[in-house]
Amino acid sequence: MKHSSPSEKETHEQAGAAGRTPVTVIGLGMMGSALADAFLNAGHRTTVWNRSADKADALVAKGAVRAASAAEAVSASPLIVVCVLDYEAVHEILGPAGGRLAGRTLVNLTNGKPEQARKEAKWANEQGANYLDGGIMAVPQMIAGPEAFLLYSGSPEAFETYRRELDVLGAGKYLGEDAGLAALYDLALLTTAYGLIGGFFHAVALVGTEKVEAAAFTALVIPWLQAMIASLPSQAQALDANNHTTDVSSLNINKVGFVNLIEASQEQGVSTELVAPIQALVNQAVADGYGADGLTRLVELLKKPQLL
Amino acid sequence: MKHSSPSEKETHEQAGAAGRTPVTVIGLGMMGSALADAFLNAGHRTTVWNRSADKADALVAKGAVRAASAAEAVSASPLIVVCVLDYEAVHEILGPAGGRLAGRTLVNLTNGKPEQARKEAKWANEQGANYLDGGIMAVPQMIAGPEAFLLYSGSPEAFETYRRELDVLGAGKYLGEDAGLAALYDLALLTTAYGLIGGFFHAVALVGTEKVEAAAFTALVIPWLQAMIASLPSQAQALDANNHTTDVSSLNINKVGFVNLIEASQEQGVSTELVAPIQALVNQAVADGYGADGLTRLVELLKKPQLL
Ligand SMILES: NC(=O)c1ccc[n+]([C@@H]2O[C@H](COP(=O)([O-])OP(=O)(O)OC[C@H]3O[C@@H](n4cnc5c(N)ncnc54)[C@H](OP(=O)(O)O)[C@@H]3O)[C@@H](O)[C@H]2O)c1
Ligand SMILES: NC(=O)c1ccc[n+]([C@@H]2O[C@H](COP(=O)([O-])OP(=O)(O)OC[C@H]3O[C@@H](n4cnc5c(N)ncnc54)[C@H](OP(=O)(O)O)[C@@H]3O)[C@@H](O)[C@H]2O)c1
Repeated sequence: MKHSSPSEKETHEQAGAAGRTPVTVIGLGMMGSALADAFLNAGHRTTVWNRSADKADALVAKGAVRAASAAEAVSASPLIVVCVLDYEAVHEILGPAGGRLAGRTLVNLTNGKPEQARKEAKWANEQGANYLDGGIMAVPQMIAGPEAFLLYSGSPEAFETYRRELDVLGAGKYLGEDAGLAALYDLALLTTAYGLIGGFFHAVALVGTEKVEAAAFTALVIPWLQAMIASLPSQAQALDANNHTTDVSSLNINKVGFVNLIEASQEQGVSTELVAPIQALVNQAVADGYGADGLTRLVELLKKPQLL
Repeated sequence: MKHSSPSEKETHEQAGAAGRTPVTVIGLGMMGSALADAFLNAGHRTTVWNRSADKADALVAKGAVRAASAAEAVSASPLIVVCVLDYEAVHEILGPAGGRLAGRTLVNLTNGKPEQARKEAKWANEQGANYLDGGIMAVPQMIAGPEAFLLYSGSPEAFETYRRELDVLGAGKYLGEDAGLAALYDLALLTTAYGLIGGFFHAVALVGTEKVEAAAFTALVIPWLQAMIASLPSQAQALDANNHTTDVSSLNINKVGFVNLIEASQEQGVSTELVAPIQALVNQAVADGYGADGLTRLVELLKKPQLL
């Protein structure tokens, strides 16, 4: 049976009474463990493999099947989910097992770039596998919860076939046949999280200079940022229409606010490296004659090749 | 009557049948106009003044009283709210009218630094006025709505006396007698908004390279950032406890994600100036030996004097 593709019948037998598709999870870091746990909890026969074998112990204790090798893990299920450090690790793991992928579906949830995803799709297709690239929009603790969602792109057939299985992890959103799309959206959404977190960290450092506790301050941050999030659709509309006039807040006013912000940070002994770049963009736009425009004008300044 | 303080009786007469405190609003930019409008809508006799007189026209048409000078505006009400470009403008406007402030309450909602607020409080007290410094946590369109809140610090008596009037603008939160506190919190909260908006703008530019519309992308951003906001209290707890161990996401993993994010941005022709500084902090923390820690570790790196 080695190296053979899984037949419909075989798949059904492995699924057992519940009729659920057997699933393999490769990579049992913080995220991979959460994924395997979700499949287990949903009643799937879940085969697991991790480079450091001990990370499988807790899952095996809960009923997961330990594969002795990555190749064995691939052969165990029609649906293989991989979630490791980077695409190089994916290759180290799957390269030797390549032939066994034929007739199976590989879902790669490892963070990467659009170009990497497209190459991976090509390679997987050459092995005779269907390929989906995915981005996990959740931290491990959110997996299988109502707030988790996952982005997929690549084989539409793979998404259709395994949509129910994938929904175990969180709501699946299919973005299109170009395997690179999920990575693009994933990295863009990651950026929004880093922006939020970076701003939060600077703010905590700033109020911390007056012994304000992060927890107390965060109680104010939350409603404030929720209101800011509510303003994003109208900003998106301005961006799509390329209309940066404002009745909300001008770049001129924000320029003054930034001087206060930067100087106050300096006076309180907090490093301004996370906020200075936005100030530079605001100042640039004002210098370019756009002082009466709104903040959305700044996106124009980002649409240029990297200077660093 | 010139230069005299308002007596209790005078105040009451001006208030008219409704018994509402007369209010003066100085500065009728986007924000000042929204403030004056809110007082008018709440039935206050509202006296207004703006350097460029025509900005008062719409408010006067709705029933506001136009003052011929800033001094006249100050004399018209026991409660004076000022909201202009910066503290220099506040001084240009109020300096000549200083004596008239005696016995009144000055609420300065102009964005500034803690040090500026403390100086302003001192000056106002020297004129015989009670002083509150404030930060408006809202855009003009949110004023008087359920999401607006305003931070105040300075005279506790002023806040107690006029708390109901100030609540017309949005929920008031009093932070303490140090007049600089509202500015500190205000600038910190502003920073969180700039972080969020900066991340959003980079993300929109990035997906825009593949012709993804900002509006469609924003529909994904909103639930994602809401989930990230829900994670802030546990991050705050980690920060207050100075415990940066993580079972969520390590700096090592984020370091790899950042390489993908920066390289993909470069490959798509989007400038990375807004995200590169957070990457630099992540790399620094990993180089310092904190790769297994969570992102909250980065705040330690911001607690240092400005290097620029
Ligand atoms: N954690 C999150 O919040 C989160 C959220 C969304 C997406 N993600 C993505 O999920 C993926 C995994 O993240 P994680 O948080 O689970 O990271 P992690 O806890 O650090 O786990 C990394 C995993 O990669 C494996 N690995 C690394 N190099 C390898 C190699 N050369 N060969 C074989 N295996 C290798 C590790 O195996 P060993 O145990 O043998 O070291 C481990 O299973 C990343 O792409 C990350 O961006 C994570
Ligand atoms: N807009 C927002 O979303 C927002 C949110 C929170 C806080 N704020 C704060 O509210 C304040 C006002 O912002 P805004 O959005 O209303 O700004 P704006 O629309 O640009 O209005 C600026 C105001 O300042 C006046 N001004 C400027 N220089 C002056 C001077 N030398 N002497 C007298 N008046 C002067 C202007 O008078 P002229 O009409 O004569 O030019 C105008 O009334 C700022 O501190 C801002 O940070 C704004």
